[in-house]
Amino acid sequence: MQNKLHPDPSPGAITRVPGFRAAGIACGLKEGDQLDLALVACDQPAAAAAVFTTNAFKAAPVLYDLELLSRSHSAIQAIVINAGNANACTGAGGLGDAERMARLVETALALPPDSVFVMSTGIIGHRLPMGQIEAGIRAAAAALSPAGAGDAARAIMTTDLVPKEASLQVEIGGVPIGFGGMAKGSGMIHPSLAPAGAPHATMLSAIVTDAAVSSAALDAALTRAVDASFNRITVDGDTSTNDTVVLLASGAAGNPTIELDSEGYPAFEAALTGVCISLAVAIARDGEGATRLVEITVRGAVDDGDAEQAAKAVATSPLVKTAVFGADPNWGRILAAIGRSGIQVDPTHVALWLGDVALVAGGEPLPFDPAAARAALQAPKVSFTADLGLGSGQATVWTCDLSYKYVEINAEYHT
Amino acid sequence: MQNKLHPDPSPGAITRVPGFRAAGIACGLKEGDQLDLALVACDQPAAAAAVFTTNAFKAAPVLYDLELLSRSHSAIQAIVINAGNANACTGAGGLGDAERMARLVETALALPPDSVFVMSTGIIGHRLPMGQIEAGIRAAAAALSPAGAGDAARAIMTTDLVPKEASLQVEIGGVPIGFGGMAKGSGMIHPSLAPAGAPHATMLSAIVTDAAVSSAALDAALTRAVDASFNRITVDGDTSTNDTVVLLASGAAGNPTIELDSEGYPAFEAALTGVCISLAVAIARDGEGATRLVEITVRGAVDDGDAEQAAKAVATSPLVKTAVFGADPNWGRILAAIGRSGIQVDPTHVALWLGDVALVAGGEPLPFDPAAARAALQAPKVSFTADLGLGSGQATVWTCDLSYKYVEINAEYHT
Repeated sequence: MQNKLHPDPSPGAITRVPGFRAAGIACGLKEGDQLDLALVACDQPAAAAAVFTTNAFKAAPVLYDLELLSRSHSAIQAIVINAGNANACTGAGGLGDAERMARLVETALALPPDSVFVMSTGIIGHRLPMGQIEAGIRAAAAALSPAGAGDAARAIMTTDLVPKEASLQVEIGGVPIGFGGMAKGSGMIHPSLAPAGAPHATMLSAIVTDAAVSSAALDAALTRAVDASFNRITVDGDTSTNDTVVLLASGAAGNPTIELDSEGYPAFEAALTGVCISLAVAIARDGEGATRLVEITVRGAVDDGDAEQAAKAVATSPLVKTAVFGADPNWGRILAAIGRSGIQVDPTHVALWLGDVALVAGGEPLPFDPAAARAALQAPKVSFTADLGLGSGQATVWTCDLSYKYVEINAEYHT
Repeated sequence: MQNKLHPDPSPGAITRVPGFRAAGIACGLKEGDQLDLALVACDQPAAAAAVFTTNAFKAAPVLYDLELLSRSHSAIQAIVINAGNANACTGAGGLGDAERMARLVETALALPPDSVFVMSTGIIGHRLPMGQIEAGIRAAAAALSPAGAGDAARAIMTTDLVPKEASLQVEIGGVPIGFGGMAKGSGMIHPSLAPAGAPHATMLSAIVTDAAVSSAALDAALTRAVDASFNRITVDGDTSTNDTVVLLASGAAGNPTIELDSEGYPAFEAALTGVCISLAVAIARDGEGATRLVEITVRGAVDDGDAEQAAKAVATSPLVKTAVFGADPNWGRILAAIGRSGIQVDPTHVALWLGDVALVAGGEPLPFDPAAARAALQAPKVSFTADLGLGSGQATVWTCDLSYKYVEINAEYHT
């Protein structure tokens, strides 16, 4: 009965779930004829859960979605996403634009009111060119297809170099259940997502499933899955105004509705978490200027919260990230980051590994093979594990190295 | 009676205070024949106050100085500082080395026990070459002179491009009082200094005065001056294992001893704060790879703590720092950083200026002259001011831009 959790990252994820169609089209928000508007639609009303940035400057689409969720979370049928313009810091006018995007989709697809989520990503402080958006939504509605997921995943990219998709098929209570998700994000990545209340470039993700799930179970599963995935990645420590993850569950699989106390709930949450981790790690790997994915695990902390706080201090340290870019086993920078993180640490208990190479024990350096260390640092995925030797708290966080390209992308980006 | 607080940054600061001698010599800790060991000595026992890193991994000299202060803070006569090796993460052996540095100075200068502070900066996790240190201390003791402050300030540099010095003469209660200080720091700069209790590159500062000051007044003045200066700068957000500021007050000026409730106390604290701000800003300006000093003021916050928290979020944002390097008025990144800082913000009340150029009012963008904005961003000192419109809380924080050179310095540094 154990479901294998190896989500498939190949293109076409969302529409691998029966009942979902998608499209990605170009409406001129990005330069040239790049895809810049995505639409995902479900054949039937779906239960929805969503988590949003905790940033105080919430973009207009985030404010719109929060309002929408307070009115309806059981009859959602579409998600519209534009890239190239974040519709953030755009005041009342911007909020009206976000609402109009939803209305345009409802009209184009003959859906009832309050059935469409809206997301935006791109530059801050510019009103959306609503003429282009309107034409784009009509074109996307016309292009919806069971083969459109790959285009949708490309349309939501900004500084992303690659699209991010993940799909997974599991069996829950004997019923086959499908999951499909897409995400974008490369810079301004340090999500701090919370249900209706929590942080700009922005990470966006839309995930769909054909499982039948109660609203309470859907909310709980998404919150816990995001805490173990999107909330565990960082590129630059900057939390966006637009971060949003939306989950739709159509119920088309015909399974008995999964409630919080259902036997099937843990399997549902585990599968969703697997999809979210796959998408989140893909964002960290594609962080602006990244040459390597960096996985930081802190264990032996007093509790999981301490472990996460320490791992995030390491993951956001420019000194650690540049040392990884330089392939230098500068363990001192890692200990210094743990030491400044504000958690409980006894230096004499601390051990540190780079991959399988032991660097530190008892807070003091060990002799190690420089060639092995350098090889571990030149791998596409670099892993550091710190054991604080104090308790059973543990957390894993993902980031990337800090390269010249990061500076280029962000210093040569002009508003 | 108003003292003008424009500290003099010219070389020779510490020995401009009567009764202090200094030296900077080379003992082979750095490559070539660069100066790498500094000694400051006072002709008479001085009252001392000090603040230290809050990093859990405190370097051996920090642990030594903490012990020293618990035994003695009224009869300090010297400060010895080496660069090139931080003596951090070096266990009991390293602590013994720090203590031995103090003993060697005491012997060389015929001082009583417990009369010498020790500081180190440089690579983490390597034992000090005590043979070189011993020879170095003997040479420095022999070289002490009223003209040695400039060499001392150069000897404590690591990735610093320029030495940092500041001197100030004021009159307190009719008595002329001198202040002289030096500091080093360029990377791993995000001091979080606290009296006997608070984080690696490292910022170090030694400040001397000939004022007569009670121990309580000295502690209070240093803590408050550091909170308004060294604790308000950041280069990379990484708080060091070695950060230390030591203040010696010899009393040679012959003024009536300044107590906490003395009429002269505010003037003393103000002068000390002026010296500390001058040195701290010099560190931010010389941050690794910096092309510009960045001053961030947040006002109108609910309280000063909120203002400082928001200003530090902006100052540590890689997106803001790369935008300054690129001379792009990307105000959205600044608002996003304030918004994620966790303080109380009402987006509709927020205004933002770049120098004199108004960028944002009421949380929404204003039309501005791009040429004026670019000019303000290309000045050696770039100033951002945010008004949150909520209260009277205010704080100013200093940082620098994030350039290709920062990545080069830290990726090509090999342990």
